[in-house]
Amino acid sequence: MAPKDNKEGNDMNRNRLLNAELAHAIAAMGHGDLMIVCDAGFPIPSSAWRIDLAISPDVPDLETVLAPIAASFIAERVGYADTLPVHNAPLLAKLKRLFPDADFETTKHETILGEMAAKAKVIVRTGAFDPWGNILLYSGVDVPAWFSKPGVVAPDYYAKKMKG
Amino acid sequence: MAPKDNKEGNDMNRNRLLNAELAHAIAAMGHGDLMIVCDAGFPIPSSAWRIDLAISPDVPDLETVLAPIAASFIAERVGYADTLPVHNAPLLAKLKRLFPDADFETTKHETILGEMAAKAKVIVRTGAFDPWGNILLYSGVDVPAWFSKPGVVAPDYYAKKMKG
Amino acid sequence: MAPKDNKEGNDMNRNRLLNAELAHAIAAMGHGDLMIVCDAGFPIPSSAWRIDLAISPDVPDLETVLAPIAASFIAERVGYADTLPVHNAPLLAKLKRLFPDADFETTKHETILGEMAAKAKVIVRTGAFDPWGNILLYSGVDVPAWFSKPGVVAPDYYAKKMKG
Amino acid sequence: MAPKDNKEGNDMNRNRLLNAELAHAIAAMGHGDLMIVCDAGFPIPSSAWRIDLAISPDVPDLETVLAPIAASFIAERVGYADTLPVHNAPLLAKLKRLFPDADFETTKHETILGEMAAKAKVIVRTGAFDPWGNILLYSGVDVPAWFSKPGVVAPDYYAKKMKG
Amino acid sequence: MAPKDNKEGNDMNRNRLLNAELAHAIAAMGHGDLMIVCDAGFPIPSSAWRIDLAISPDVPDLETVLAPIAASFIAERVGYADTLPVHNAPLLAKLKRLFPDADFETTKHETILGEMAAKAKVIVRTGAFDPWGNILLYSGVDVPAWFSKPGVVAPDYYAKKMKG
Amino acid sequence: MAPKDNKEGNDMNRNRLLNAELAHAIAAMGHGDLMIVCDAGFPIPSSAWRIDLAISPDVPDLETVLAPIAASFIAERVGYADTLPVHNAPLLAKLKRLFPDADFETTKHETILGEMAAKAKVIVRTGAFDPWGNILLYSGVDVPAWFSKPGVVAPDYYAKKMKG
Amino acid sequence: MAPKDNKEGNDMNRNRLLNAELAHAIAAMGHGDLMIVCDAGFPIPSSAWRIDLAISPDVPDLETVLAPIAASFIAERVGYADTLPVHNAPLLAKLKRLFPDADFETTKHETILGEMAAKAKVIVRTGAFDPWGNILLYSGVDVPAWFSKPGVVAPDYYAKKMKG
Amino acid sequence: MAPKDNKEGNDMNRNRLLNAELAHAIAAMGHGDLMIVCDAGFPIPSSAWRIDLAISPDVPDLETVLAPIAASFIAERVGYADTLPVHNAPLLAKLKRLFPDADFETTKHETILGEMAAKAKVIVRTGAFDPWGNILLYSGVDVPAWFSKPGVVAPDYYAKKMKG
Amino acid sequence: MAPKDNKEGNDMNRNRLLNAELAHAIAAMGHGDLMIVCDAGFPIPSSAWRIDLAISPDVPDLETVLAPIAASFIAERVGYADTLPVHNAPLLAKLKRLFPDADFETTKHETILGEMAAKAKVIVRTGAFDPWGNILLYSGVDVPAWFSKPGVVAPDYYAKKMKG
Amino acid sequence: MAPKDNKEGNDMNRNRLLNAELAHAIAAMGHGDLMIVCDAGFPIPSSAWRIDLAISPDVPDLETVLAPIAASFIAERVGYADTLPVHNAPLLAKLKRLFPDADFETTKHETILGEMAAKAKVIVRTGAFDPWGNILLYSGVDVPAWFSKPGVVAPDYYAKKMKG
Repeated sequence: MAPKDNKEGNDMNRNRLLNAELAHAIAAMGHGDLMIVCDAGFPIPSSAWRIDLAISPDVPDLETVLAPIAASFIAERVGYADTLPVHNAPLLAKLKRLFPDADFETTKHETILGEMAAKAKVIVRTGAFDPWGNILLYSGVDVPAWFSKPGVVAPDYYAKKMKG
Repeated sequence: MAPKDNKEGNDMNRNRLLNAELAHAIAAMGHGDLMIVCDAGFPIPSSAWRIDLAISPDVPDLETVLAPIAASFIAERVGYADTLPVHNAPLLAKLKRLFPDADFETTKHETILGEMAAKAKVIVRTGAFDPWGNILLYSGVDVPAWFSKPGVVAPDYYAKKMKG
Repeated sequence: MAPKDNKEGNDMNRNRLLNAELAHAIAAMGHGDLMIVCDAGFPIPSSAWRIDLAISPDVPDLETVLAPIAASFIAERVGYADTLPVHNAPLLAKLKRLFPDADFETTKHETILGEMAAKAKVIVRTGAFDPWGNILLYSGVDVPAWFSKPGVVAPDYYAKKMKG
Repeated sequence: MAPKDNKEGNDMNRNRLLNAELAHAIAAMGHGDLMIVCDAGFPIPSSAWRIDLAISPDVPDLETVLAPIAASFIAERVGYADTLPVHNAPLLAKLKRLFPDADFETTKHETILGEMAAKAKVIVRTGAFDPWGNILLYSGVDVPAWFSKPGVVAPDYYAKKMKG
Repeated sequence: MAPKDNKEGNDMNRNRLLNAELAHAIAAMGHGDLMIVCDAGFPIPSSAWRIDLAISPDVPDLETVLAPIAASFIAERVGYADTLPVHNAPLLAKLKRLFPDADFETTKHETILGEMAAKAKVIVRTGAFDPWGNILLYSGVDVPAWFSKPGVVAPDYYAKKMKG
Repeated sequence: MAPKDNKEGNDMNRNRLLNAELAHAIAAMGHGDLMIVCDAGFPIPSSAWRIDLAISPDVPDLETVLAPIAASFIAERVGYADTLPVHNAPLLAKLKRLFPDADFETTKHETILGEMAAKAKVIVRTGAFDPWGNILLYSGVDVPAWFSKPGVVAPDYYAKKMKG
Repeated sequence: MAPKDNKEGNDMNRNRLLNAELAHAIAAMGHGDLMIVCDAGFPIPSSAWRIDLAISPDVPDLETVLAPIAASFIAERVGYADTLPVHNAPLLAKLKRLFPDADFETTKHETILGEMAAKAKVIVRTGAFDPWGNILLYSGVDVPAWFSKPGVVAPDYYAKKMKG
Repeated sequence: MAPKDNKEGNDMNRNRLLNAELAHAIAAMGHGDLMIVCDAGFPIPSSAWRIDLAISPDVPDLETVLAPIAASFIAERVGYADTLPVHNAPLLAKLKRLFPDADFETTKHETILGEMAAKAKVIVRTGAFDPWGNILLYSGVDVPAWFSKPGVVAPDYYAKKMKG
Repeated sequence: MAPKDNKEGNDMNRNRLLNAELAHAIAAMGHGDLMIVCDAGFPIPSSAWRIDLAISPDVPDLETVLAPIAASFIAERVGYADTLPVHNAPLLAKLKRLFPDADFETTKHETILGEMAAKAKVIVRTGAFDPWGNILLYSGVDVPAWFSKPGVVAPDYYAKKMKG
Repeated sequence: MAPKDNKEGNDMNRNRLLNAELAHAIAAMGHGDLMIVCDAGFPIPSSAWRIDLAISPDVPDLETVLAPIAASFIAERVGYADTLPVHNAPLLAKLKRLFPDADFETTKHETILGEMAAKAKVIVRTGAFDPWGNILLYSGVDVPAWFSKPGVVAPDYYAKKMKG
């Protein structure tokens, strides 16, 4: 890994996403589309668009992959397994730090493995050995950029985002 | 963008469609087939024929892409989200100017995202940051060219188009 | 195109690259790799990776496509046809504004059509009706980010970039 | 074939190119790219982009296919076999009528079969039983549209086209 | 098109099918398989095997394409839209001439667009601007060749074909 | 195999080519293109278009495959190995019967294995256990059909074919 | 075809399967998998694995193709159309000779065309003009080889095969 | 096979998995994903990811293939046909030795052929002539590695594995 | 591996080739085509047709894979590295036993890695840890079957094979 | 990244390679084949087998990717740019620690970009911002495992490895 002192020095750079296929996937996502960033053990369906970034156990971990994604992708909602608060609280805490503006919602673990894995536009595998470490990112939009044109009337549920 | 003075000077040229894949798609559409021209945030299904013309926010906008399409494609019907009249009236006004001869119809936004996106023969993505900016174009035919042969009897609903 | 008043308002956004395939291509380029951004009439070899953004004559023009690329891609060198200074001076002027830090070099027009078109990693077609409007972008690196680690010694030709 | 009376009635329509793949090919051609429109017996290389429009002997003939191409494609130069003037003068006469503004040039028949067939971007097969009926169309540009911007200086060889 | 005098002179040749992909399709059809030969405006499903022979309006027309097919393909049944007798009687008359030995049946226009288009093994597009000009050809067998071997007993419905 | 008595009875049918891919290949061949019909042991290059009709030793033999090809394909020239007259005279005799109008030429066996196998548009494998049983068929044209139009002047070497 | 005297001489060879794709298909079949060997007119679904061995009418016939398959493939069950005993008794007689050890069963003709064609792992087309000439071969196993290991207990229905 | 004396000498090596595609498949499996290692006669669906390691009867046998898989793959559960205990007890005994830590479960033979074959991520074919020799391996995780981080709470059913 | 006693019992079966892709490759080889059966460490070119049968070190070894190939493939010549006699004499001895009728020839090890690997039609990888264990099999023909027809004259170099 | 304390705790696990495609690539490499593990800026040829593991600047760095590769891949030789000792000495030091048993050699930087990039079987991209950070790994063999069989004579240059 990059030496500690370096990490502080160019935080801005750390967030620049380098992976070519991941850059493609993010640019291809529309409003409401689902990306799953998962741990090393997630059973990714054969029919999914799979981007495998796993190297070795816990390398890269979820935070390492989620951080640059969070910087170039507007996650309107972030979903996680209903077992996470009890069984992997440290991971949940990291998530809340990485996506301060997102709505959070829990999903049953079985639903993530089944319905959500089938629905995801892309599934990004990390090397994380993190139980229930499968994070659902729902693509949002840059609200002020979309609702500021003359004549465009934002619906109520975007009103507060416009003010903020 | 092309300098202002140039725009006026060769309006005829502006309408000539240059994009190779879009030219293919238009020539491949049959009577009643659906093309969706969408904003930058439309969740395009992975299985769709996707033509991505988006460059940067609002470039190209919907009008820029719709204008040359309108010139080489007969849209019998034009569909738009039921929320458009209230929430994005300026866009609706542009649509009516671009397709003066088409029938207009509203579709529920959820239906466009689901059933219509699945049914579309091709989905053309613009860079528009235009809420509900997803336009449904249903391919028509050149009525006089199709119904003027000796012995061919036009049905009632094409009668007025023949006279006009 | 986007209305004037909007353009000023979110200049920052205008530079964000939306096109999914172009985002992939840029992220896939290595140091020294060549991207050609060309006018609508460039004879793109059948074997090339072709990204066709042309819509109608002069839409989008070269500047519209080059601007967001310039914002997310470090062009170490920028090449253009040797005929450009005499025959299309306005385009050359735009180029110098878009890439203030790049080295510029001229290439014979025939060499661009032959050797360079064959060598390019990706060719991006605009709608520009701009004679000799075929721009060669050679990928560079973020010099300070690459040469600031302890023990790394920058070669002379990068020395000045480090100071700047 | 369409009845005689109809042919006269909508000449304008006859020229509208309907074929989807051919529309794609024409839109994909750049300045100087070569399209070969050939008779039914041309030995098309296996590696070529082949568009087979042949139906039965002499249907469609070369003129039927060349006419709508001529209407949507600017052929700067038109090439034909050096044997054509002596051995198939009627075909040559048709060519000159179809492309009144093009430069004409002869090519050795062997060169068409070998070097030119390998170089062509696309080869369109007709049903013509027309000896040496293999026509080379070199893509041109709309000279006034390309050279009329302020600051653009046309080279001498385009000067007369600008005036015309 | 081929000059009139020529048409008479080699009628035999006119029927020889030249198109390579169409020759493949015909040879691949089994007893009861469906081929649709359609007008230029038929909405061909994206999943269909599509052979696009359309050139320009009414070129080639349905008769031009059906004639050589009729000569190399045994159509046991020929289907057409139930609206054809009233709205396009001339086309129906041509059909009866082209397939003198076939059984004819009408199908609802909506069924052709939906169920039949999905079921067709191949769909051949002509340039015809002929309302309801979508003809269903069901592959038959050469009855005498199939039922004349010693010990083979033809079913009743083939009996008359054996005698004729 | 079909019973003897049947063979006599519908000789006409025996010649009708049923194989779908072979029908495609024949329709795709142009003047001078090369088809090789080979014995079961011919070393077909991996890059060739290979149609494998071999079933078991000597089934089908060369004559069985060549007969229907000869009926639907005009072979201008027929090539065979220079060793054939001495080492497999019976096969040469069959060839002369099957292609009564063709020119015959010998080619060195090594040239057939190397240069000719690489050049062939398609290679059709039979089950023949026939030494040097690799026949080269060069596609010709129907001379009278091609040279009878008014104004078309046949070259000398086709003159005699026109008369015949 | 191979001369008569030769046929007797190397019967053993005649059974060696030469076709590369058919060899692959047979080796890929598991216990209970279905292969259909069909006449020239069987409507093979577009989605099937199709091996087209048809050459001309009745060449090769069903026996010619079934014989080498029977020699390298253990057919546990052989299915045929319920109409075969009455309408094509000679073919049924051949089948019984070719597969002396198989169980035979009849299937409704409609079921073969529909459900069985969809279920078949591979469909092999012959040139047979044989009504209802579509044979269903269900892959079996070499019973003694599979059940003779110490500790392996054959079920009752394989008991008699072990003794035989 | 490798000589006996060698087998003892480098047991460690024997377990290193060499097959490239199998290495890929194992690394691609997530928690709960199913791999089937089957005998030579298993009817593998055409749509499956098939890795064919069969060479000749009983070579390689199931143990030979399962041993190196067992060494690099954590099988949480191992499934086998309900008929195995009675009809092929020696194979069941081997399984228990190869996967000492797994849970075992029986599945109806019909379910393995149908539902399980469709669900398997990959099916590995051995040469085994072993009745009911189709083994279901469900991918597990390295429990101590996944549940030892601070703040992670293992569920009850993994508790004992943590202690062990 | 299969138990010893079984090996003796069905030697005939052991030689039956089960692998589907290998069966395809052998059936696709023509006279003189080259198959390489290699050890686990052979650098197989990326462009080769690669059949990977390696499981674990020395499993399967070369003999295990060569034996069933030898039984279904006539190797006219067998090549091996010039270093084999000195450095791996036991392997050479096995080869001579497996191919008693073949001609043997040595090839420089470098030539096998370069020219021969590029020329091979298929490369079959075993698990053998056998230095220089890369065997070249050149496909031959069944001489008596090919040269016994009336009128066929075998060349001198096949004369002795005819007698034997 | 994984928390510090965890890193120490399961060093063994850290080395287990998780990436599915990389596992495939390593298992597919033969003796002498070249893998390049490169920094984020290496110009990877379009024709290469590219495995892109780059996430963000310096994540993962070269060491992070090289460590698990070193654990499952025997690198006989390790190559690096001739500029490395002077310009990036820290990276060279890491390399020597990671591959203690390999031979090291320098290659000119230009040769790595050209000849070596074209020759590499696979190129693995890291996120490293490390000048000249392109490492050449030449696949070796496990010498004792390959040369210990009776009758196998190791060449001199492997002699010392046998003893060690």
